[in-house]
Amino acid sequence: MAELTVILYMLTISLFTATVSASQCSTNGFPLVRNINELPQDNYGRPGLSHITVAGSLMHGLKEVEIWLQTFAPGARTPIHRHSCEEVFVVLKGSGTLYLASNSHSKSPGKPQEFSVFSNSTFYIPVNDAHQLWNTNDKEDLQVLVVISRPPAKIFMYDDWLMPHTAARLKFPYFWDEQCYQKNSKDEL
Amino acid sequence: MAELTVILYMLTISLFTATVSASQCSTNGFPLVRNINELPQDNYGRPGLSHITVAGSLMHGLKEVEIWLQTFAPGARTPIHRHSCEEVFVVLKGSGTLYLASNSHSKSPGKPQEFSVFSNSTFYIPVNDAHQLWNTNDKEDLQVLVVISRPPAKIFMYDDWLMPHTAARLKFPYFWDEQCYQKNSKDEL
Repeated sequence: MAELTVILYMLTISLFTATVSASQCSTNGFPLVRNINELPQDNYGRPGLSHITVAGSLMHGLKEVEIWLQTFAPGARTPIHRHSCEEVFVVLKGSGTLYLASNSHSKSPGKPQEFSVFSNSTFYIPVNDAHQLWNTNDKEDLQVLVVISRPPAKIFMYDDWLMPHTAARLKFPYFWDEQCYQKNSKDEL
Repeated sequence: MAELTVILYMLTISLFTATVSASQCSTNGFPLVRNINELPQDNYGRPGLSHITVAGSLMHGLKEVEIWLQTFAPGARTPIHRHSCEEVFVVLKGSGTLYLASNSHSKSPGKPQEFSVFSNSTFYIPVNDAHQLWNTNDKEDLQVLVVISRPPAKIFMYDDWLMPHTAARLKFPYFWDEQCYQKNSKDEL
């Protein structure tokens, strides 16, 4: 009897999870005004990251812009990556370092320039430039609002700065888009 | 002698202002990381508004997205307006009311729906829907981060909710874009 209760309990939990998952994707409709605190938040397999899709393409049906709220614990960072879209950051809290290799016409990104970023700063990543954002402040979280164009994001990832551009690996759908990605989506790479 | 000093002083001030004005537009280049506190801030003729173009098209050379930081004093509001682009708000502080008329296919906007917006909420304005954001909280400022696609903004303004869509007046360049707008710009309406 106890086992049956456990099984029923687990079944209920998984059904509930499935319902929550489905309702997170744009086909289901959303209230117009949403509380960011109540939106799905996850690290999507990256230690020290909190990612929230505030307004998204696959998640909420936007076509031209997408907004993320990301928090990086001390030491947390993005992969080295590039994407063929505009990207603007607004730093809400903390500080860190942006590594940016503005040579998309060379064979590989090469040694990046370093830029200090800080609370209430904003910066723009030129289209296709390889970059990495790193919370290099060991005392506090780095929180950023990220705006990209041409959603959903098609992200090419590098193992290091000397990896050839042609060897960078496309990750699509990106980790936080996987759940809402539909194989019959009309979006084209 | 005193008069000459005053004239020289005023000349210096106006030269300085001209230099600042020119350097606010994208042709002049910008540091990659910018302090939002140091960006130009103005009410652009609208009482109770503070507008900062955090990352802009005419101002900073972006092509696909534009980001504004706007603060509305109690009672301050946008005009009733529409635009043919996506627009997402993130409320950083305060609260207020969004008026939204989702009937761009009727003759005029008509009576709008009312939505309460609050700190840490986000909302999306459907393309071409007439809307108005109003700080209806008489105690505190309403501060929002605004993201639009297809910059620079081409904004059609209404005198009231019953004004026909066809009578709405295009304001282009918009007030905060006037300074950087170039007549030989290739941007098309």
